[in-house]
Amino acid sequence: MRSFFKVKTAEDIFESLKDIKPLGTESVHITDAHSRVLARDIICTEDLPGFQRSTMDGYALSAKDTFGASENLPSPFNIVGEVRMGQIPDFSIRRGECAQISTGGMLPEGADAVVMIEYSQMVEDRVVEISRPVSPLENVIQSDDDVKRGQVILHNGTPLRPQDLGILASLGISQVDVFTKPRAAIISTGEEIVDINQKPKAGQIRDINSYTIGGLCIKSGVEPIYMGIVRDRFEDMKSLIGKGISQADVVLLSGGSSVGVKDFTLDAFLSLEGVEILAHGVSISPGKPTIIARRGDKTLWGLPGHPTSAMIIFDVFLRYLFGRLSGLSRPAEYSSYTIEAELDRNIESASGREDYIRIKLADIEGRWLATPILGKSGLISTMVEADGIVRIDMNTEGLYRGEKVKVRLF
Amino acid sequence: MRSFFKVKTAEDIFESLKDIKPLGTESVHITDAHSRVLARDIICTEDLPGFQRSTMDGYALSAKDTFGASENLPSPFNIVGEVRMGQIPDFSIRRGECAQISTGGMLPEGADAVVMIEYSQMVEDRVVEISRPVSPLENVIQSDDDVKRGQVILHNGTPLRPQDLGILASLGISQVDVFTKPRAAIISTGEEIVDINQKPKAGQIRDINSYTIGGLCIKSGVEPIYMGIVRDRFEDMKSLIGKGISQADVVLLSGGSSVGVKDFTLDAFLSLEGVEILAHGVSISPGKPTIIARRGDKTLWGLPGHPTSAMIIFDVFLRYLFGRLSGLSRPAEYSSYTIEAELDRNIESASGREDYIRIKLADIEGRWLATPILGKSGLISTMVEADGIVRIDMNTEGLYRGEKVKVRLF
Repeated sequence: MRSFFKVKTAEDIFESLKDIKPLGTESVHITDAHSRVLARDIICTEDLPGFQRSTMDGYALSAKDTFGASENLPSPFNIVGEVRMGQIPDFSIRRGECAQISTGGMLPEGADAVVMIEYSQMVEDRVVEISRPVSPLENVIQSDDDVKRGQVILHNGTPLRPQDLGILASLGISQVDVFTKPRAAIISTGEEIVDINQKPKAGQIRDINSYTIGGLCIKSGVEPIYMGIVRDRFEDMKSLIGKGISQADVVLLSGGSSVGVKDFTLDAFLSLEGVEILAHGVSISPGKPTIIARRGDKTLWGLPGHPTSAMIIFDVFLRYLFGRLSGLSRPAEYSSYTIEAELDRNIESASGREDYIRIKLADIEGRWLATPILGKSGLISTMVEADGIVRIDMNTEGLYRGEKVKVRLF
Repeated sequence: MRSFFKVKTAEDIFESLKDIKPLGTESVHITDAHSRVLARDIICTEDLPGFQRSTMDGYALSAKDTFGASENLPSPFNIVGEVRMGQIPDFSIRRGECAQISTGGMLPEGADAVVMIEYSQMVEDRVVEISRPVSPLENVIQSDDDVKRGQVILHNGTPLRPQDLGILASLGISQVDVFTKPRAAIISTGEEIVDINQKPKAGQIRDINSYTIGGLCIKSGVEPIYMGIVRDRFEDMKSLIGKGISQADVVLLSGGSSVGVKDFTLDAFLSLEGVEILAHGVSISPGKPTIIARRGDKTLWGLPGHPTSAMIIFDVFLRYLFGRLSGLSRPAEYSSYTIEAELDRNIESASGREDYIRIKLADIEGRWLATPILGKSGLISTMVEADGIVRIDMNTEGLYRGEKVKVRLF
């Protein structure tokens, strides 16, 4: 078991994850629904706003009565009432008549347009002169202008933005069906790793990966479950991984860069019933020493111990996986912002693997300049310095100074 | 009081908000610190990793002993020990000697480089042949390569990213000083507005703004306090605004687009002791009918009733204000992602005001095409359709088809 070795390409791995199904759904109150992923299409059950509304403060009237009105020859109108906000006007407008109306008010029967108050002049107590013609429906929202009954206004798999909450509110949907948030069990391994509250002795370092990976989970809408540090003992590892898989949808074990632990990780994954190894090594850099296993729709990840490598693997694969589990219709695009920048030096890259280069951005007179950050993937400070990453695909042997690159903000 | 009218430019308003101070600070656990704003500089109190570490699995040795080694003429080394992870090696390396080492292991005394296991061949039980020379420090992280004692690694005013949490962890900082989250009291006004759980009668609409504004708050790291709907009664409004200002840092009252309510809003703001009106109308579209008042570092906003207009005002001013209150060193940039796109039609714009145009984006063979969304600001559906907004500044009279524009994702 321990001897087989399957190095996979990124494409292979996406292929073997693409049938993973979204988790279940739950109902949350609209005030808790921001950035959650909608779990059904929203079909409008009514026209909105549902009545003819004014978009201005002014006078509701029949547009054709204003034709010919001008500053030199204003048309007089009798004011027959005032529209009260939130109420159906109890009068109607006939030829030569108008009604005072505020923004949002309901047009009275017989009115089909609103003249802004700026183009009116009171001449007597109940008479106003209008100095500009309006077209039918001018300054009016029609009864189904916002949404039409039967229209699909929001789609299953959409992360909800503030304006989407607005449309839900307008339809009276206070409880929203969303996909359950994925949960990730986070485990750090390694004899050299100590808890952050402990003073490391020479040869030891504090646990970094639990916190970078936890942060990436939160950023991706995933609930992290911090399981702590496990030493290089097979039974301990097996038991903690088992606990992780029972509590979470994904187990993210990092470290185990020493040869012994690598084997333990693989053996511990395989010791769980029904587990299949998807990859033992991936052809991307940094991040090669990654083990991926699957049991049903749950996956187990043996991430590299180097913080940067583990973060890159998260970004490339786990962001996509969590997008699928979250029910996103476009999982790869979630929380993915890229900007175009110009490289300020050449970058070499080995063909046959994908390279991910850390980038520092500078705004030079409105143009973005991208400086590759050199430095080993074992250094977390290089990620702190970075603003984003650039991907160099398998068939490209490098990039040249002056080339335009897409930098994913990180 | 009710008669004065100060329409202000966006620039005026930024000017009158720029002395607002960040709120207080609090200490949170590192697992709760993602996206919070750091409230002090982080100065490294130690070198990291603090010892010489291997970045590879292989053999630790003295680089100069490998000079001349090749595949045809490999150099033999006596293996004098194995570095145990997390421990100080209890042996040292002399000429012609090496030690087995794993990634992350501490280099023994006398070793200054690591040869990857791939370039070695066991020839006897304790003898290995090395087939490639290494330079001093090759495959080694030096004791202060990650951070140097005394270095400022993170700056006050930075929103914490996953990698920043990593560096805090590496330094043993489990409790982090961050700025307190701003709180916003959200109030909807208008006789025509009903609660989302209520069926509106003709002339009424459900409360949209509480939820779009609440969502924008959450997106900006602000805690929303939903205060509900208040009718067009001066005393009720005054009392709810007073309650809002006592509980929150910012009061966001929306609606009141009818003439009567507009006056109530202004009067209610002025009825609170020590309140100064900063603006009564702003020269941006949509969003003109906005009232802004200030009492000390607390501000009161009478936002437009149209959902789109209120969202634009939030995006232009409140995102900046909340950035300042949150202690961000670059408040305008927070959560601000823009992409460059090409306009697919002309847009007109009146000079003398800033225009904000809703944009739908389409990816046409790797280029972004921006289609302006026409439609009244009273329609929330136009914001749902939009992917972002484009700003047209005061001195520009419009934009032409084919022009490159910066679309802020929204």
